[in-house]
Amino acid sequence: MSILFVQTGGTIDKDYPRATKGYAFEINDPAVERILQRIDPEFEYSVKTLLKKDSQEITDADRMKLKDFVLKSKFDKIVITHGTDTMLDTAKYLDDIKNKTIILTGAFKPEKFKDSDAEFNIGLAIGAIEFLQPGVYIAMNGIVHHYFKLKRNRKTGHFVE
Amino acid sequence: MSILFVQTGGTIDKDYPRATKGYAFEINDPAVERILQRIDPEFEYSVKTLLKKDSQEITDADRMKLKDFVLKSKFDKIVITHGTDTMLDTAKYLDDIKNKTIILTGAFKPEKFKDSDAEFNIGLAIGAIEFLQPGVYIAMNGIVHHYFKLKRNRKTGHFVE
Amino acid sequence: MSILFVQTGGTIDKDYPRATKGYAFEINDPAVERILQRIDPEFEYSVKTLLKKDSQEITDADRMKLKDFVLKSKFDKIVITHGTDTMLDTAKYLDDIKNKTIILTGAFKPEKFKDSDAEFNIGLAIGAIEFLQPGVYIAMNGIVHHYFKLKRNRKTGHFVE
Amino acid sequence: MSILFVQTGGTIDKDYPRATKGYAFEINDPAVERILQRIDPEFEYSVKTLLKKDSQEITDADRMKLKDFVLKSKFDKIVITHGTDTMLDTAKYLDDIKNKTIILTGAFKPEKFKDSDAEFNIGLAIGAIEFLQPGVYIAMNGIVHHYFKLKRNRKTGHFVE
Repeated sequence: MSILFVQTGGTIDKDYPRATKGYAFEINDPAVERILQRIDPEFEYSVKTLLKKDSQEITDADRMKLKDFVLKSKFDKIVITHGTDTMLDTAKYLDDIKNKTIILTGAFKPEKFKDSDAEFNIGLAIGAIEFLQPGVYIAMNGIVHHYFKLKRNRKTGHFVE
Repeated sequence: MSILFVQTGGTIDKDYPRATKGYAFEINDPAVERILQRIDPEFEYSVKTLLKKDSQEITDADRMKLKDFVLKSKFDKIVITHGTDTMLDTAKYLDDIKNKTIILTGAFKPEKFKDSDAEFNIGLAIGAIEFLQPGVYIAMNGIVHHYFKLKRNRKTGHFVE
Repeated sequence: MSILFVQTGGTIDKDYPRATKGYAFEINDPAVERILQRIDPEFEYSVKTLLKKDSQEITDADRMKLKDFVLKSKFDKIVITHGTDTMLDTAKYLDDIKNKTIILTGAFKPEKFKDSDAEFNIGLAIGAIEFLQPGVYIAMNGIVHHYFKLKRNRKTGHFVE
Repeated sequence: MSILFVQTGGTIDKDYPRATKGYAFEINDPAVERILQRIDPEFEYSVKTLLKKDSQEITDADRMKLKDFVLKSKFDKIVITHGTDTMLDTAKYLDDIKNKTIILTGAFKPEKFKDSDAEFNIGLAIGAIEFLQPGVYIAMNGIVHHYFKLKRNRKTGHFVE
């Protein structure tokens, strides 16, 4: 099994800025890379940084760039780490890609936090990707589904059926 | 989706003893419960403690008790947390159970450790269980496979094909 | 020994907001309370929330409120957790308080982060407070000094002599 | 300020063995080194590994070696990390050293654990060492005292007056 991991940014990659004035986070190196180094998994993988944006800042031009990158990639199993706010929009944008299994995942708390869900969510996506038909999926809150079967609970922010 | 989690012990649940003399760990409450409380997943689950043993101490009587428990359970998706040393033996013991998807997982570092693989491995098992045919599987080192297709690398301790 | 801990906010108490849109942190419950619960120390203490502000937002009215609170307190050993950006300003404001040992401390990374300096810094302040003469001190970067002997290194943000 | 840190072993340095069979911990690299690298303190320091033993295994020959090392060292501020079970014995052994401030500290949970007291305790010792007269002290459970004023609570394991 070979998996490509693509960083677009989002909460999972947020870090506390070194020279800190005020409240802003910054998006740092891909959390997925640190997680996989700790796991040292028995599959081949590559990690690529495409964007470092909060998902509310992701434009259609960014989505076009992402789609183009996925289409040209030799990998047919792709995990995209992405902010939660527009994860469904990006998933929809990638919907017509054929012959590739694409899972979008991320986190509600940055991987740098003690109580982060990042490691669990990356595990969740990897556990599913081997067994899924080609298509575009979301792996969050302990479930993995076709993106078009999920919506967000506005109160909790959770992805639900 | 409903999942039953069964604790048998092993590294994942090891904690530092409160009244400490010398080198010994103790096996404490199921790590999977703490992990799922942090995640607050969108599926139903139950956690059951059956054993609290290092996997080298698990006997065939223990395995019979485990098999019996799994057979009588109303759940058909079951994740068993287990020590790595005899994980393959226990998997083999459960092999003739029909109509249930059983995944054994655990950790190389206790969930209490900062650099534990526990959260990732639990995510890995959950990500796969929805999409697997009935059978007995192992989810470790980033891969999920029928137990009989895996063996252990003696140097690294990793489960490999 | 009895110590009063006063929360004013700052990086040490920053958390990731539950309903997250964009980049902003929020200031949450006092980190010092979580740290002391983990330690279960052999001295008496009380934790009081006075402000929950980034230190750039702290006004002279806030400082007056803090000074008043410290003066009226029955404690004579007081640790104030505070943002780093205006820690020296607040220390100066408290300078003419007599007969109390006051230490300001905080963190460069929130206590919620895996690589936070919060626990070390709180330990540093507590280790010193028993042995210091009355006055106003800063405990940061491994050193404890009269505030007026310290300045900030603009590059690193560290407090240095 | 210059501080010498001496590793003798104990809980603070315990790690989960790589090739794990059964329950035993192993004593690994000095935790104090990892902690100080994260803090990047504004004082000079050196870390020396003298022993890697659980404190129940420390012999009088080890204590003689430690005393000799401390006496010959050019440092006059010395923090010794040590297991808690015989920390008082080692402190007593060092009692007649003149002109040096020696603090013994350690941890109830290894620094590798998420809920460790190691960072706090190292901070505690450093906060006190600048302001103490020469002598032999223990810094544990949030207090710093002459070793001969402390005893252990048998139930909790805490060092108390």
